[in-house]
Amino acid sequence: MSQPLGRPRDSRVDEAIATAARQVLAEQGYARLTVDAVAARAGVGKAAIYRRHATKQQMIFAAVMHDLDLATPPDTGSLATDLAAITRDILAALATPPPGVVPALLADVHADPAMAAAFARTFVRAERDCVTEVLERAVARGELPRLPDPATVHALLLGPIFAWLFLLLEDPGKAPAFADTLARGVGHLLGRDGGA
Amino acid sequence: MSQPLGRPRDSRVDEAIATAARQVLAEQGYARLTVDAVAARAGVGKAAIYRRHATKQQMIFAAVMHDLDLATPPDTGSLATDLAAITRDILAALATPPPGVVPALLADVHADPAMAAAFARTFVRAERDCVTEVLERAVARGELPRLPDPATVHALLLGPIFAWLFLLLEDPGKAPAFADTLARGVGHLLGRDGGA
Repeated sequence: MSQPLGRPRDSRVDEAIATAARQVLAEQGYARLTVDAVAARAGVGKAAIYRRHATKQQMIFAAVMHDLDLATPPDTGSLATDLAAITRDILAALATPPPGVVPALLADVHADPAMAAAFARTFVRAERDCVTEVLERAVARGELPRLPDPATVHALLLGPIFAWLFLLLEDPGKAPAFADTLARGVGHLLGRDGGA
Repeated sequence: MSQPLGRPRDSRVDEAIATAARQVLAEQGYARLTVDAVAARAGVGKAAIYRRHATKQQMIFAAVMHDLDLATPPDTGSLATDLAAITRDILAALATPPPGVVPALLADVHADPAMAAAFARTFVRAERDCVTEVLERAVARGELPRLPDPATVHALLLGPIFAWLFLLLEDPGKAPAFADTLARGVGHLLGRDGGA
């Protein structure tokens, strides 16, 4: 039975495959990675990989997702600094995989309904939970009069960082400063009307 | 000699190939489109396609780009409504290609330096010119004290719409309302400090 994507069983084989996939990805790039190379690196048979992942793309997705820390950042005591922590986490998640991997995985997500479901269930939901929790904290503190639409705030936080790195091909070295600017801007908008 | 990507010569063959590519794309989807099918539909030989486009991916890119209207929107007399016009144009550009095509092309752009250069030279530059012109109009009107960083504003306008459609997989039917919300938010931020 195949695994839920991005949530491998906690076992040494799962870990070995994910680690090997990330190493091969970093060395060979997305297009040239083969399941054979990952199996050899992990010291497992191809069957062990295909028992866990229906396709090469799903294997890569799981390995990349597995490596991300998508926990909600600790409560910093203010919406502004909580938002800055989220944009830094989003930037780290997008900038961690080797070059080209994020756009390639996104194309795969749009080509494979199983991957789309897994993407929604893992990356999108984890980030949405972070955004929602940070907004709820601000409401509880009295910083916001009511909960803004989490989907809107999520798009405002994630989209510009994705655009900076992958659409506009801007300098990644300037991305951290851009992420901070973005967090301040979104914080300002939320503070203005309690909703973006 | 191959053509500059996305800027086909003004000729009937160029038009026929681009039109055929868009039709096959809409019918077959990105992954199943073949150069043979496009050549047959266009009534040209494969050689005619490969004289213009080095790869299938470059042919698709040119066909999709060719179909987009990336002109700067007319001066509406205010920054707020100019920004709303830009976000509507961005949404139209991203939502026009058949499902999956934009993410697939983005992956191709990151896998092929020639496509990355063409993408920067066409889509990114055209949108950046729109953004810059709209900001310059606002400065000329006295709505903004100085020109904000166009790259930052571009990322703020493009990114959330891309995220809504392709990362968060939100309802495309709600994208126009989201684009308007976004334009208002960015306009507010720019008005606040003359720079995002």
